[in-house]
Amino acid sequence: MEAEATPFVEHLELKPVEDFFPSNTPFLAFSGAHGKTKVTVITMGKDTVYETGVDNVGTVPASLATYLAVEKIKTMNDGNDLVDLILNAGTCGGFNRMGGAIGDVYLTSGVANHDRRIAIPGFTEYGHGKIASDIDPTNMAKELGFKTGIASTSNSLDKTDTCDEIMKDHNASVKDMEAAAIAYIAKMQNLPYMGVKVITDIVDGGRPSQDEFFENLASAAKSLQSALPKVMDYLCDEKRVNGEL
Amino acid sequence: MEAEATPFVEHLELKPVEDFFPSNTPFLAFSGAHGKTKVTVITMGKDTVYETGVDNVGTVPASLATYLAVEKIKTMNDGNDLVDLILNAGTCGGFNRMGGAIGDVYLTSGVANHDRRIAIPGFTEYGHGKIASDIDPTNMAKELGFKTGIASTSNSLDKTDTCDEIMKDHNASVKDMEAAAIAYIAKMQNLPYMGVKVITDIVDGGRPSQDEFFENLASAAKSLQSALPKVMDYLCDEKRVNGEL
Repeated sequence: MEAEATPFVEHLELKPVEDFFPSNTPFLAFSGAHGKTKVTVITMGKDTVYETGVDNVGTVPASLATYLAVEKIKTMNDGNDLVDLILNAGTCGGFNRMGGAIGDVYLTSGVANHDRRIAIPGFTEYGHGKIASDIDPTNMAKELGFKTGIASTSNSLDKTDTCDEIMKDHNASVKDMEAAAIAYIAKMQNLPYMGVKVITDIVDGGRPSQDEFFENLASAAKSLQSALPKVMDYLCDEKRVNGEL
Repeated sequence: MEAEATPFVEHLELKPVEDFFPSNTPFLAFSGAHGKTKVTVITMGKDTVYETGVDNVGTVPASLATYLAVEKIKTMNDGNDLVDLILNAGTCGGFNRMGGAIGDVYLTSGVANHDRRIAIPGFTEYGHGKIASDIDPTNMAKELGFKTGIASTSNSLDKTDTCDEIMKDHNASVKDMEAAAIAYIAKMQNLPYMGVKVITDIVDGGRPSQDEFFENLASAAKSLQSALPKVMDYLCDEKRVNGEL
């Protein structure tokens, strides 16, 4: 969402990139640098298809925007701009039962889906769509004071009892609406993926997610603005040391 | 799914198109003609990301495959191959309460989602994502002996009570796993969309969807093979008469 991205975009003084996405899509791109690291932030823009004007959210626009962005970058700068890493920064729901609190920053150790129930052998695993992170975030989280855990994704802000059972099976620490779809596309494009997620609401806390979400959206976005440069610095240091990401 | 597409592809003697989709996607394309109408069938191929080897299903691969296919066709034949219409052919669940029976062919009058619950004004409507068909299928269905109704989409083969409440609110006649996502992309690309859906299982019939689905998949695919040329003939006749689709 725009409100999640704007503080970070302004902090890094990223500039809008015209014609980055095809003109029939609503997606937006902002580009610039953090130290020696080239950074492109993409957001999913506003909804025009259903004419609601709200921010596009969920797995369908997230996967399409990610796919198109990576393919676009491959064609830029005479093919010299490669994508090293997809970071999925945003807000999420957390769980009291997993020790989560509002404002906590999580680095994802993996993703899964909790709204894709297909009770056919093989399809069940496809639906759950578990992907472990290519980057083990354990040491990074210790150094930066963040937490680690699985992000479980659905296209709903709320949860049903069925959702909750599946999230427990996934051992999910946070719940969001895009992570599993972006990780799926990253794996299709053979790129490492990691989520950086800030808790805006407590899923098992008794208050409706939407109330807590809006109360904490602005502070979570500021928290992302602070956390993302630290994550990039850590990963780029690692890259320099190891010769790889 | 491959099993849904194969009888139709073989009936029209469509040929695989090499390099139609980017090589990092699992999607497949088959091309040929039905009378004067150029036809490209796309399927979502097999899952390699999660390494299950099953057919890709659901809204994420459906939307990406549709978007990429339309953009690809725009670049073919020196830009002279335009897409006139996106038909989403496949199986679906039907409802006793809506008068549906196994084997019935439905032409969709619209689509909606029943697994995108976002209780925030504006976002609620975005999540439901209702899109009315650009093509009114009423007369076509009468002439061809088919039914019409709303297709409601989720990423699950089963349904929860919450799903069912939302499908009732949508006045859904059939339930599938792709229609709303493909219609969304079609609208983004400013193309007319219609679903042609054959019932393989009765959602409110007491038997598990997955059992009925496999019993009736082969006969439903044969039914699609027969129905799709009739739909194309009808639409092309209309197009000739009206000078438009």
